[in-house]
Amino acid sequence: MPGDDGETVGGSSERAVLARILGALRGSSRALVGPGDDAAVLAAPDGRVVVTTDTLVHGPDFRLAWSSGRDLGFKAAAVNLADIAAMGARPTALFVALAAPEATRLRFLEDLATGLREACDELAPVCAVEGGDLTVSDTLTVAVTAVGVLDGREPVLRSGARPGDVVAVAGALGQAARGLAVLFDRFRDDLGEPVPVDLAALSPDERAALTAQLRPSPPIALGPVAADAGATALMDVSDGLVLDATRMAEASGVTIALENPGDPLALSGGEDHALLATFPAGVPLPEGFRPAGVVVPRGAHSVTVGGTPPVGRGGWDPYQDWDAHRG
Amino acid sequence: MPGDDGETVGGSSERAVLARILGALRGSSRALVGPGDDAAVLAAPDGRVVVTTDTLVHGPDFRLAWSSGRDLGFKAAAVNLADIAAMGARPTALFVALAAPEATRLRFLEDLATGLREACDELAPVCAVEGGDLTVSDTLTVAVTAVGVLDGREPVLRSGARPGDVVAVAGALGQAARGLAVLFDRFRDDLGEPVPVDLAALSPDERAALTAQLRPSPPIALGPVAADAGATALMDVSDGLVLDATRMAEASGVTIALENPGDPLALSGGEDHALLATFPAGVPLPEGFRPAGVVVPRGAHSVTVGGTPPVGRGGWDPYQDWDAHRG
Repeated sequence: MPGDDGETVGGSSERAVLARILGALRGSSRALVGPGDDAAVLAAPDGRVVVTTDTLVHGPDFRLAWSSGRDLGFKAAAVNLADIAAMGARPTALFVALAAPEATRLRFLEDLATGLREACDELAPVCAVEGGDLTVSDTLTVAVTAVGVLDGREPVLRSGARPGDVVAVAGALGQAARGLAVLFDRFRDDLGEPVPVDLAALSPDERAALTAQLRPSPPIALGPVAADAGATALMDVSDGLVLDATRMAEASGVTIALENPGDPLALSGGEDHALLATFPAGVPLPEGFRPAGVVVPRGAHSVTVGGTPPVGRGGWDPYQDWDAHRG
Repeated sequence: MPGDDGETVGGSSERAVLARILGALRGSSRALVGPGDDAAVLAAPDGRVVVTTDTLVHGPDFRLAWSSGRDLGFKAAAVNLADIAAMGARPTALFVALAAPEATRLRFLEDLATGLREACDELAPVCAVEGGDLTVSDTLTVAVTAVGVLDGREPVLRSGARPGDVVAVAGALGQAARGLAVLFDRFRDDLGEPVPVDLAALSPDERAALTAQLRPSPPIALGPVAADAGATALMDVSDGLVLDATRMAEASGVTIALENPGDPLALSGGEDHALLATFPAGVPLPEGFRPAGVVVPRGAHSVTVGGTPPVGRGGWDPYQDWDAHRG
């Protein structure tokens, strides 16, 4: 293919692979000591850092027939940035442990690094990739660790919801699951294997859902905004609203009474990385948040939807749902 | 098997898997906010943190026939703790991204968590696992991110070696490679596949080498000690003394003239995670360090051994050496 040099991980030295990746990241580091030494040194001006890690694995989490290197890098960053935001913190650095098959092209890894950088630029402008690790594996795996700072705020935990609080959500719900359904329904061959997406075959709504699935843009900046507005609890909706609200309700010892959004996928669909927050009654919701229910004293169920218990588990469990989603 | 419940990742909910792992880690957290929320919050008293990530992949980095879950957890922690020490820092937290096949037993993951904890307890007593992530993968992968603090010290980079400095090493060199050779030479079947180790068949020296390979104990506490003693450069010897000394020499713009240790594996063997340091001439070497050469002005070669250029690449490159080490 013209312009594609076709070099692979297996045919290159570690130094050559690193040079391609670092080239795509060049100039983005803002650390006290950036990539290239045994470890990076990051500033933590208020004496604390927030740290989280989340991994994307080829098969359960993405398919190369559907995700470009740039999409994959973007998503790997976004899902981690969302967990930092969900503490009320501001992301400052990513560390990327990349395990790639020998046949992986250097061009693909360069695109992946570009996607990581694009996600930082768009969602968390001070954040950059400040370190990483490369290994050979039969299974392409992108494990990202994100670091953030609180700028003097207290972290907002999932355990702080109190009866009387208003429940609010920022970001789309159900879109990522809708995008996954488009992929499974429309872009698999007769054997169930993924085939490349034909964007021209999709409606604008389907394209938007696909973007939410392949290249999600969680409302990262709204994490600190929620904290500043007095959020009592805050978390990332990664496994579906009902399941994650259940976790918040159990951590807080309350029941979360959700309004019925009318769309089943908005209750059960995973991978949205919206923010779920609770605010004291009477506090004006920050721009970007919309009401989604109320916190009530602990009742028979952790979560109710439109006044009744939710049907089924109502969310995504990677260990139990994986077979059903296998291509 | 009596006492082995036989439960697997694929047959369990995420909550059940997490409960087993968190059970093995219980009581060890020392973070401001430990495991269980979207992210952990760590103290960074002097306003800086040191962060590194390193991954072990089944196949290139370990074989389950040779490594127990405890060994694997211990090694995954140790190699990351060494990178923190190599900045002159003190490790405070580990984050573990674990990708495991469905057939993995919960018991194995519990053992792995125990191994991570044992490594912290033995090598870096204030450090603990403060977060992680679980995913399903065809390839067992343990990606660890370690965080440390500098306690007011300046980080010691690999770029600070100056002509006239003394080169010193702490920790064994060549032992881990000797252990790998024992495994490859003695514990494979006729098809080259790994078979379990029979310790009774080994001499005490072979057993020590095997421990260095499977459950390494790098001199973590000596990283801050070297920094306090005035080390000008410091790094982890993970890919063999000659290759890592070359990296230090190139980063510092000098030539490192190593004494000839007499043992080729001490020059080329990887995975020792010894510390390589340079100190100003006349500074007494801290206990645990031994002289290994001198820094001289940049000459024709980055590194010399006993006055002559080293033979071959002299170290381990995971992308180029993997085929040769395939079982």
